[in-house]
Amino acid sequence: MNINYPYLLFIGDATDSLSIKMARSAADWSPEKCLAEYRLPGCTVSTGCPEMNIQEAAAAGAKSFVLGFANSGGILDPQWIPTILEALDAGMDIVSGLHDKLTDFPELTERAKALNLQLIDIRHPNTRFKTGTAKKRQGKRLLTVGTDCSVGKMYTSLSLTKEIKSRNLLATFRATGQSGILVSGNGVAIDCVISDFISGAAESISPDNEAEHWDIIEGQGSLSHPAFAGVSLGLLHGSQPDALVVCHALGRTHMRGLPHQGFPTVIETIELNLTHAKLTNPNAKVVGVAVNTSSVDDAAALQACKEISEQTGLPCCDPIRHGVASIIDNLP
Amino acid sequence: MNINYPYLLFIGDATDSLSIKMARSAADWSPEKCLAEYRLPGCTVSTGCPEMNIQEAAAAGAKSFVLGFANSGGILDPQWIPTILEALDAGMDIVSGLHDKLTDFPELTERAKALNLQLIDIRHPNTRFKTGTAKKRQGKRLLTVGTDCSVGKMYTSLSLTKEIKSRNLLATFRATGQSGILVSGNGVAIDCVISDFISGAAESISPDNEAEHWDIIEGQGSLSHPAFAGVSLGLLHGSQPDALVVCHALGRTHMRGLPHQGFPTVIETIELNLTHAKLTNPNAKVVGVAVNTSSVDDAAALQACKEISEQTGLPCCDPIRHGVASIIDNLP
Repeated sequence: MNINYPYLLFIGDATDSLSIKMARSAADWSPEKCLAEYRLPGCTVSTGCPEMNIQEAAAAGAKSFVLGFANSGGILDPQWIPTILEALDAGMDIVSGLHDKLTDFPELTERAKALNLQLIDIRHPNTRFKTGTAKKRQGKRLLTVGTDCSVGKMYTSLSLTKEIKSRNLLATFRATGQSGILVSGNGVAIDCVISDFISGAAESISPDNEAEHWDIIEGQGSLSHPAFAGVSLGLLHGSQPDALVVCHALGRTHMRGLPHQGFPTVIETIELNLTHAKLTNPNAKVVGVAVNTSSVDDAAALQACKEISEQTGLPCCDPIRHGVASIIDNLP
Repeated sequence: MNINYPYLLFIGDATDSLSIKMARSAADWSPEKCLAEYRLPGCTVSTGCPEMNIQEAAAAGAKSFVLGFANSGGILDPQWIPTILEALDAGMDIVSGLHDKLTDFPELTERAKALNLQLIDIRHPNTRFKTGTAKKRQGKRLLTVGTDCSVGKMYTSLSLTKEIKSRNLLATFRATGQSGILVSGNGVAIDCVISDFISGAAESISPDNEAEHWDIIEGQGSLSHPAFAGVSLGLLHGSQPDALVVCHALGRTHMRGLPHQGFPTVIETIELNLTHAKLTNPNAKVVGVAVNTSSVDDAAALQACKEISEQTGLPCCDPIRHGVASIIDNLP
């Protein structure tokens, strides 16, 4: 997968800022890759990028037209086909993180082929993976894990990568979900891999590297989430992390999407992940806790992080509010 | 998936009895579905079924031509295409458990369509699954789990189903791998499901049922196998088992296929599976241990089972040598 940039971020007529998470992630973390956003009448949200239409963006050098929104079910609404064809005609590759595949629409595949442009379905790996081998690889690895889904694992991973690089150490962010892939330009949407190959795909995401290099691997799901724990476990085993960072969000009372499902503590999450991590890396250790404190004020955020730090004996911070220096200070 | 029978089991020129596991499983456990086997010159193994060629089997009423062999990589060797076409022309559906899909061969899809026959790739689910919900379902469920892959989970599950039914209780074997699917005529190859949907697919395998009915669910892999633990965990969560049976094989020194990977104890396997099972069924309990003792003599087999029973406080038996009555006696 090779995503050309700069991007034109298409957010359609979105009115919910959560629905444009993919576009916002790219704008926040790879602003140098984002030329502009393309909004339609009725759209009430923004990535913060300047506005351009397809012709303006093409003239300014846009290389990829990114479907930067999501909807429940990941459907590609046929109403957008003419817009996508216009972007192809303007010379851009098309990038989608939807569940529906661009390549399932014959009018798109024909036009892209005729124009020698790419249709990139970033949720659908086109690599044929192998099953996991659990063989030790060179280099160091850090994996973010969570008490739940959507607790900030990608933002934490990107913050950690930025902090390490600011210290002139070698590090690479390794994306495992569609937003992360758009930010970094490559990666594997691990939850879209055939389940026999989860660990093998995870192994391929952080290959052998220089001994002092850190791969910062974006985690997915949670070992305590009944729908997605299998993905989390395969990713954990294949990543062979030397270091784990537990991500957590304040104010949750149940697992995401499952009102009847209770929430694990940070301590339980540490123990569960360490137990399993040691299967493929006996030296694995948890080096910090990252908390999404957006539901409380500054004072309460500091207090919550202090309490978790005391309970766990680990550095604890909100990456957005406090930065992640204390966690990087604690790397092995 | 609806596999018509009786089957003609095609084992080609196989010389390794392990390579015809799928055909042998059907012959052993669903002899009423197996009309005959079709062997070619050079074949040195057998399912024990009478021999017939395609024309003889068609005349005797065969409804499905089963590719009953496997090879490393699950490749469909093009040399078999003429044979498969002959079976289609004789009026049979084609059933394959290979990784390569029958439906990827245009000459097969065209012929099957013209003759209104099915090409059934049992490793490739064609259902669109949902993500798991962890909602409680009615009925009782038993899942076999393992210290490793290939320790007898399918044979144990089938033995348990047979024993329950012999007591005039309601039970259904639920297949999760290609051999089991061929035995039962339906099921889901869980390791071929997109990883986002492992638990959801597992939930669909044992739907709501009568309160006293037992689903006996065939386990896959092992929570301690670095390549396949994600599949095992998703299957465990989605199955919501009331009862677990731990399967084990004597004489293993490392995890299957991974010479560098140590082996868990039965006790560790019990604890690990119970910890995770309680996420979706707080009342889950382990009710017995099934051991493949084929590597030792009768006396050593009995002694090994006695020792494991004393260590675990659970009934322990080799399903083939001793039957599984003691485990069924211990059901909740």
